[in-house]
Amino acid sequence: MKILLPDTMPLDPTLPEGWEAVTVDARTEIPAAHHDADVLVLWGPSRVHLSSAVENLDNLRFVQSLSAGIDGILTAGFRDDVVIAAGAGLHSLTVSEHALALLLSLLRRLPEAREAQARHEWSTELGGLQPLHPEDRVTSLIGAKVLIWGFGQIGQTLAPTLTALGAQVRGAARSAGTRNGVEVIEETDVLAALPEVDVLIDILPASEQTAGAVGREVLAALPDHAILINVGRGTTVDQVALREALEAGTLGSAGLDVTDPEPLPATDPLWDAPRLLITPHGAGGRPVGADERISTNVRALVDGTEILHAAAR
Amino acid sequence: MKILLPDTMPLDPTLPEGWEAVTVDARTEIPAAHHDADVLVLWGPSRVHLSSAVENLDNLRFVQSLSAGIDGILTAGFRDDVVIAAGAGLHSLTVSEHALALLLSLLRRLPEAREAQARHEWSTELGGLQPLHPEDRVTSLIGAKVLIWGFGQIGQTLAPTLTALGAQVRGAARSAGTRNGVEVIEETDVLAALPEVDVLIDILPASEQTAGAVGREVLAALPDHAILINVGRGTTVDQVALREALEAGTLGSAGLDVTDPEPLPATDPLWDAPRLLITPHGAGGRPVGADERISTNVRALVDGTEILHAAAR
Repeated sequence: MKILLPDTMPLDPTLPEGWEAVTVDARTEIPAAHHDADVLVLWGPSRVHLSSAVENLDNLRFVQSLSAGIDGILTAGFRDDVVIAAGAGLHSLTVSEHALALLLSLLRRLPEAREAQARHEWSTELGGLQPLHPEDRVTSLIGAKVLIWGFGQIGQTLAPTLTALGAQVRGAARSAGTRNGVEVIEETDVLAALPEVDVLIDILPASEQTAGAVGREVLAALPDHAILINVGRGTTVDQVALREALEAGTLGSAGLDVTDPEPLPATDPLWDAPRLLITPHGAGGRPVGADERISTNVRALVDGTEILHAAAR
Repeated sequence: MKILLPDTMPLDPTLPEGWEAVTVDARTEIPAAHHDADVLVLWGPSRVHLSSAVENLDNLRFVQSLSAGIDGILTAGFRDDVVIAAGAGLHSLTVSEHALALLLSLLRRLPEAREAQARHEWSTELGGLQPLHPEDRVTSLIGAKVLIWGFGQIGQTLAPTLTALGAQVRGAARSAGTRNGVEVIEETDVLAALPEVDVLIDILPASEQTAGAVGREVLAALPDHAILINVGRGTTVDQVALREALEAGTLGSAGLDVTDPEPLPATDPLWDAPRLLITPHGAGGRPVGADERISTNVRALVDGTEILHAAAR
């Protein structure tokens, strides 16, 4: 049996006896010598690589992506009997860390502090005695009401940290309930909940349903002091509406790790929106626990047991 | 019985029956009508206010400061029988939140992202696929070795959050042991521990012993990729040595909420040190739980039981 590993990150999974692991260039076509592969691991594949896999790997039974979002792989044209698994959970720690970095940076006004520093100015507005809860802004997670929209693995990793820092955290997902001790509301109830939300964290996946989810209506429903973080997908935010809300002062601040499109064109006016922090899709990009996931899922494939995060097809 | 509350923050403590609370201007002399006060609460007092209290409050039995550091109050000249209590713990959540904000901002290179944003540049260096543990820098708390030097209430509040984010946390204090599940080393062992430290968080108080604690020797012992955070006192860092380490590339980056002196003069070359983020002493500045602390300690004063965080005099 043969498994193809991408050269885009160091990997060393533990495989069942008799399995051969071959590292291939994830940016080019798969060499003919390896068209007999049974399993393919994908991390940052080029389109050419993906097409080559679809066309040439006749023995392929299982595709393990290390990405959390696999919409591009599901529609690439693999045979229906090929199992495709997402790398769900491999990015929970890194993406939640980045979401927290963006949020705390905005709460603690670090971009403004950096600008004052460049002017050699010890800003009395940014330091010294201050109210814990000023009327017109949120400056700390203590007592802050946070809503995590798209409450999957990343949100569930992030929530306890926000709680430990003093925030009141709720999630929003397709079905209501309690997950890991966090109250989760239905997505249809998000709009009604927003007037009480200080921080909205968007971790929505890309889909037809989520396109433009954070649009004019949502932004208008949030308080003027609210902070928006997006570490989900760029398409979920209406960027024109976001810029207008920031310019009008009807949104406190925003931090985006994702945009639509990516890269964001140099001519896009979003770059200059006030109180906006953009990072170039750097939240994840480094799967944690990839070897263990590959090992577990290859074992499951061999044993005929459940493959973790296999997509419904 | 009378308690004087400062006008520098909203306060509404629960007091024993018969007690009168009077709010006074913390920036000026205490009015003669209130020279009969039994208890004085201090938050951001002016020197004039403090002198007036020392000279005029003949019935004074107890001073409750809401600050964590009370060196200035202890040396102000109050009679030896006046109990003076520090506001220890009231700043743990806010200061640990700020330390985390500075640290995550540096780990996730948000100042560089902000600069790229100003140039309308989608920096491929700051995003996309990346190694989890590059050789020459620390980019995540996952697996990072953190040492918190000065492991009091703030450090013990911060440690579990860092651990939850994937860091390996140790403390350094006057005596070794285990506190709240965190291994604490003796301060005399700090220098030997530094070569293995990725992040050094300074939460040391100001004292003769801590002056310049983070100096040439400490900075040289840290790896070149290490990150330094100071939310303790500015005097604990040798700022010339820090600037030289940043300029020479023998320290990864640094975040300071405190400097020596404060405000940092506009002419100080520290402002322009590379990979340095300065905030103007804004970590705390907003006591959390002040009413409860005042209530508890006035009750203890009346009952003759132990007053929380009373200073040894």
